[in-house]
Amino acid sequence: MSTQIIAIEWADGSVRLIDQTLLPVEEKYLQIKTVAELIDSIKRLAVRGAPALGVAGAYGVVLALDEGKEKNWSPTELEKQIDAIRDARPTAVNLAWGVNQVRPLISQGRDAVLKAAQDLAAADRKSNTDMGNIGADWLIAKLGDRKFNLLTHCNTGSLATTGTGTALGVIKELHKRGKVQEVFADESRPLLQGSRLTAWELAKSNIPYRIQPDSAAAMAILGGKIDAALIGADRIAKNGDSANKIGSLGVALACHIAGIPFLVVAPESTVDRTIADGSQIHIEIRGDREVTHLGDTQLAPDGAKTFNPAFDVTPARFISAVITELKAYEIAKGEAL
Amino acid sequence: MSTQIIAIEWADGSVRLIDQTLLPVEEKYLQIKTVAELIDSIKRLAVRGAPALGVAGAYGVVLALDEGKEKNWSPTELEKQIDAIRDARPTAVNLAWGVNQVRPLISQGRDAVLKAAQDLAAADRKSNTDMGNIGADWLIAKLGDRKFNLLTHCNTGSLATTGTGTALGVIKELHKRGKVQEVFADESRPLLQGSRLTAWELAKSNIPYRIQPDSAAAMAILGGKIDAALIGADRIAKNGDSANKIGSLGVALACHIAGIPFLVVAPESTVDRTIADGSQIHIEIRGDREVTHLGDTQLAPDGAKTFNPAFDVTPARFISAVITELKAYEIAKGEAL
Repeated sequence: MSTQIIAIEWADGSVRLIDQTLLPVEEKYLQIKTVAELIDSIKRLAVRGAPALGVAGAYGVVLALDEGKEKNWSPTELEKQIDAIRDARPTAVNLAWGVNQVRPLISQGRDAVLKAAQDLAAADRKSNTDMGNIGADWLIAKLGDRKFNLLTHCNTGSLATTGTGTALGVIKELHKRGKVQEVFADESRPLLQGSRLTAWELAKSNIPYRIQPDSAAAMAILGGKIDAALIGADRIAKNGDSANKIGSLGVALACHIAGIPFLVVAPESTVDRTIADGSQIHIEIRGDREVTHLGDTQLAPDGAKTFNPAFDVTPARFISAVITELKAYEIAKGEAL
Repeated sequence: MSTQIIAIEWADGSVRLIDQTLLPVEEKYLQIKTVAELIDSIKRLAVRGAPALGVAGAYGVVLALDEGKEKNWSPTELEKQIDAIRDARPTAVNLAWGVNQVRPLISQGRDAVLKAAQDLAAADRKSNTDMGNIGADWLIAKLGDRKFNLLTHCNTGSLATTGTGTALGVIKELHKRGKVQEVFADESRPLLQGSRLTAWELAKSNIPYRIQPDSAAAMAILGGKIDAALIGADRIAKNGDSANKIGSLGVALACHIAGIPFLVVAPESTVDRTIADGSQIHIEIRGDREVTHLGDTQLAPDGAKTFNPAFDVTPARFISAVITELKAYEIAKGEAL
């Protein structure tokens, strides 16, 4: 599409990233040339979103090989640097997955690793398209062939992936089919990925939208303003329990009580079939300052402590279906992944 | 108590207000001597909270009488000035109520008006204390004589009243009895009354607390971190349906699903027995800029629209009890008000 947004790609022998911390005010690209720069950009969320992090991890191995060659790293040092990329964000299973996908190819040489990373990005793009179609088909079959008001949380679009997105990819596909009335984007505190990123993508894609405080989601849903909610996932357990951006659980509870569909849209790589349920998902607790300050503006008393989990886990019983690039798993009907 | 916060009082022949727009960074008191100054402080939210505004209206009539005497206002001019106080915030019914409570006493002289205004403040203070005791007794009877982790939303404390507060008054009473482990204060977007005001009050009162994004409330509650949630109310229907700061509903849904108490704490004056249920409560929709900007910082794309309701209505079926200065109404057991 003409408005294609590319969050991450391999370009000019390094990783090109849009710096998501500056959106929606400034559209600036970073050229990442070292492991340290990549880890920094991951930690400060210049690049974020499970699938984009997978690709970042894979490209990171190429960066490590190039930097290691230039700086004469020992094999041990190289392994240490690659481990550091893999572990830059503990809950983000895709980051480790991306690293692990290409790591076994190191013995075949740097170009083989790069090709594998690029294939991984291409596969992600294709999976976005497939999820978009499966999710759109599912919603139309469920709710009828009409225009929908849709709620989404955080950012799950082109800025989180290498294609159209996961949950936002489904919304874009529905829009392409003329089925979107309006999108209600939760602002997604504390980092405001909804108002900063999702709104920016929706505006770029000419999809009608409004932004709401996260705390308004329950009222919008119970007040009958929403036909369905769609979110992404950072990790999904075998039974369907899904970890996603903090606030997803509250949306799910409201949908459950209102009796409207709540969809989790994520690639198969997000599904961790080695864990039976969400109790085994480690939740990253982030720093106080994200909540107590906005930029340099102080929002809370000096020394205020916070409860600032990056994710919550929505139990499978509140999820209608999990949409992957392969199929719609009917979680509400008891299907496992 | 030694840490008593007084948001508004009559002192040295004028109205003394804490300027809430500067909290939590600066604790500055305003000495309001003219009608124009009072109206300005009401309009820019230096003073806010339904009960506090009622008292501000009543003291405002005294200010008008004193200023009118000094400036030789005609009776018509005096009435005009008092009307201007009454109408400074059209949606704040308590402001007009406070003015109207003392206005009929003007014929009895300025001191009679001042006494009536001070009585009104004293009655509000006493009702806070009574709600505090009734609410604390209710929670201890329900949950056992132990320390609680409590969740609250928005600001319902000394900054919104002339006493200890409503929901926050119950928390302060529990703290006095040694029953508070920690308070989880929702930051309460978009205006952040939780992180700016409630956190400041809790710090002043030496009550352990942490601030959380509103979107973290569901996880805190379903994750077993919270024993009970307490909120205030702006209007309560006869069946118990309660309008309060946007986000209250989401907290109530999570408490309902987790099976923990959700209490609404508000004075009898908040109960509107002329309306059968919440469907008759008009909800104020506020401007886009509260959501799209924080101060001068832009958080959303240019021209973004929002869904920004000031309040939501929690249906009675999700409320355990309504606490007033008279009693605990057992809403969950089917009791009406």
